[in-house]
Amino acid sequence: MLWQRFYEAIKNKKSFLISAHLGLEGDAVGSSVALSAFLRSLGKQTILLNDDPIPDNLLFLTANDTVLQSTDSLVHDAIAAAEACFVVDVSNWNHMGKTGKLIESSGKPIYCIDHHQCSEPIGDIAHIDPSACSAGILIYDLIRSYDSASVSKEIAQAVYTAIITDTGNFRFSNTNAAAFTICADLMNQGINHSAICNEVYENNPVSRFRLMHETLGTLKLSDDGRIVWVIITQDMLAKTHSTIKEAEGFVDMLRTIKGVELSILFRQLSPDTTKATFRSKEYIDVQQLASHFNGGGHKRAAGATIHAPVDKAVEQVLSTAKTMAR
Amino acid sequence: MLWQRFYEAIKNKKSFLISAHLGLEGDAVGSSVALSAFLRSLGKQTILLNDDPIPDNLLFLTANDTVLQSTDSLVHDAIAAAEACFVVDVSNWNHMGKTGKLIESSGKPIYCIDHHQCSEPIGDIAHIDPSACSAGILIYDLIRSYDSASVSKEIAQAVYTAIITDTGNFRFSNTNAAAFTICADLMNQGINHSAICNEVYENNPVSRFRLMHETLGTLKLSDDGRIVWVIITQDMLAKTHSTIKEAEGFVDMLRTIKGVELSILFRQLSPDTTKATFRSKEYIDVQQLASHFNGGGHKRAAGATIHAPVDKAVEQVLSTAKTMAR
Repeated sequence: MLWQRFYEAIKNKKSFLISAHLGLEGDAVGSSVALSAFLRSLGKQTILLNDDPIPDNLLFLTANDTVLQSTDSLVHDAIAAAEACFVVDVSNWNHMGKTGKLIESSGKPIYCIDHHQCSEPIGDIAHIDPSACSAGILIYDLIRSYDSASVSKEIAQAVYTAIITDTGNFRFSNTNAAAFTICADLMNQGINHSAICNEVYENNPVSRFRLMHETLGTLKLSDDGRIVWVIITQDMLAKTHSTIKEAEGFVDMLRTIKGVELSILFRQLSPDTTKATFRSKEYIDVQQLASHFNGGGHKRAAGATIHAPVDKAVEQVLSTAKTMAR
Repeated sequence: MLWQRFYEAIKNKKSFLISAHLGLEGDAVGSSVALSAFLRSLGKQTILLNDDPIPDNLLFLTANDTVLQSTDSLVHDAIAAAEACFVVDVSNWNHMGKTGKLIESSGKPIYCIDHHQCSEPIGDIAHIDPSACSAGILIYDLIRSYDSASVSKEIAQAVYTAIITDTGNFRFSNTNAAAFTICADLMNQGINHSAICNEVYENNPVSRFRLMHETLGTLKLSDDGRIVWVIITQDMLAKTHSTIKEAEGFVDMLRTIKGVELSILFRQLSPDTTKATFRSKEYIDVQQLASHFNGGGHKRAAGATIHAPVDKAVEQVLSTAKTMAR
């Protein structure tokens, strides 16, 4: 059975670290919490350990968990005390920052559960399934296969959060029948759907909308209407008291313009460097566009850092992009 | 069986009108198209008749349908030729404009399928189920109960559109297990989920974002951070070449600000009249707030027209709202 090796691996151990990738989001936190709640229900001790703090809009998930950051003074003791480490929603040490280095060099057994495409999975036992819409549904499968009575409301809520955040609330192309079937299950477990949506989506700082105002003021459309782009400068961040995190989703929002194939967000990193983030709708391979500037990503979502001031970077990128948007 | 009376009613008739409510949206159009495709598969003739044209982002649904508006010269012939009329996603003649009057006075048999709360349903046969997330899932049940083989890809696509638009893509509180179970079914019928999302959500005119920029420029937050409001004037619509339709969702977007309980969009209708649209998160009953200004709606979404210039309307509404936001 798929999860048998995991069950055997955890059977005689009492304490676990659970870590995910840099830039924690709903799937990373939801998967970690669901797994932690399951292990706790078996009488195990768990600690969530990551480089980054839990984002504000996901704090409601970790109410029952011990959470550490890799900079905490307690980290070395915590790692020493743990008998094994779970790595979820990531299968690459490079995407785990300092936490990855600490765990990798600890000599502890490592168990990895992920849904990202991966050439060489990390860990003593690994289950990687790129067809899964989120790591959360793999964790859910592990828990449910063990004993469907193990699925508590806490677990159901964490798995639901993992699914909605990683599918863009069922809008991304990874949305599939399995995602919907599991969500029907989770609703039947009595999760409070509205409360979860409130926590996850209705926690935006007002500075996000001030930054959105400034950003939309820079909106330009190519003559043929197929490319839209906006710019965020350091001044705009300062003026609106926001960080670039608050621009999350802006570039996706602009792709929704009728006729637009490619949306680009240019962000001034320094006077001489610019980050370009690309989204495409149907036919432009933005991974190719990004690789032209030594960047990377996927077909419909990619990015690159360009060693040029914003205005020059816009020129260079548009000139390349226009040849692809025909 | 729930739908038996409907099956008997349509058995010996050959031609049907299908109408929905004013301001067509995804559930109205999706329900109409799904029903029409089903009736056509039984060898019947159908015409979709409404006051309003099919919105651009839903035109992909009606490719196989005959669509009329109540102002078309052919309307009287079409009504005369039809043997019966279906009324979907609405159960109140007042919400159907001229189309409602034409059908009501036609003397034809009327069959109504709706999910809105309703005290006195219209029609010779009516099935009203307010627990359904959309009228589309009722139509789906009617079709599937008749013969599950009747669910074509065209029908599945229309029902999926009905569900996602009426649940705010699974974010509104009417989202339930049944919605997810049916969506899993529809995905298994082979609908193209990404193509549907593209059509429904990625068809925004660029003027929507120019209007968003102008609107966010007016954003104000009350001292305690619980009320946020914005203003749209006639000048702003003119300057951005947009209609108020393009402001759809702005007020919902602003409710997502952390700490905000009430979001308000003030819209200048004329120099002396202002429309206020209200959304609340958890505890303010905006229906009550609206009724204070002779408006109406639901607990979390309501509106009112105020006979005052924008700046006076803002003053009046905020003074009332502040007493409720404690």
